[in-house]
Amino acid sequence: MERVPVLKIGDMLLVSIQIDMEDQTALQLQEDLADRIVATGCHGVIIDISALDIVDSFVGRTLAGIASISRVLDAETVVVGMRPAVAITLVELGLSLPGIRTALNVELGMELLARERGADEWQLEVDGDDDTETPAVTTP
Amino acid sequence: MERVPVLKIGDMLLVSIQIDMEDQTALQLQEDLADRIVATGCHGVIIDISALDIVDSFVGRTLAGIASISRVLDAETVVVGMRPAVAITLVELGLSLPGIRTALNVELGMELLARERGADEWQLEVDGDDDTETPAVTTP
Repeated sequence: MERVPVLKIGDMLLVSIQIDMEDQTALQLQEDLADRIVATGCHGVIIDISALDIVDSFVGRTLAGIASISRVLDAETVVVGMRPAVAITLVELGLSLPGIRTALNVELGMELLARERGADEWQLEVDGDDDTETPAVTTP
Repeated sequence: MERVPVLKIGDMLLVSIQIDMEDQTALQLQEDLADRIVATGCHGVIIDISALDIVDSFVGRTLAGIASISRVLDAETVVVGMRPAVAITLVELGLSLPGIRTALNVELGMELLARERGADEWQLEVDGDDDTETPAVTTP
């Protein structure tokens, strides 16, 4: 059985899918990714599918599964590198990859994750700060 | 023919080799990489081989070819993620990958490239500076 490697780059994990996804490969990838998220504490997962000519419903489900697993482990998933032809076929097949965020390439995906993470942390700071009130809140 | 994607991350290109290298795939990868180095102006190439169970003399030659092509295009190559068993087999086969630098994983490879690039630029600065002499140089 072939195995898709999971590469750690900074606070993110990068997966480049190049082989045809079969049941076992997909399950193994989901397991490997979950293990690596827990082991590294990474908050972002980037899945590059630029090598794929075809994304069928099975691959779509696999990607959605990865995104869901990552989310419960406090990591966000971005799918990058989708070919134009793949996007067209996906929509023609009625698969719009709900719940999966996309970016054009790895760099834009990293930017998206970094921005979201930054926004989250800012949100947390604002929420967790007891000493000051946000200007929008008025007390009678 | 399968194609290995070349991913751009910052000032570096990342290639994750997961499929068996055949003549055409290897040539195509060398061509794609050369094109991307010229198009992006990247100064570093990282080749991840953590998915490979076997590195034979053909793969070794391919990697050496990539390193040489990159070098003439002003980019350095680092091979990362080699499995312990692959390293042992390589040496047993008498292949020690001359001219190829290695690092344990993608992050360490990036660090190595960044450090070398930094050192090069510093060297250039020192060499190009006409106003000062380096202390080691003595004039009679």
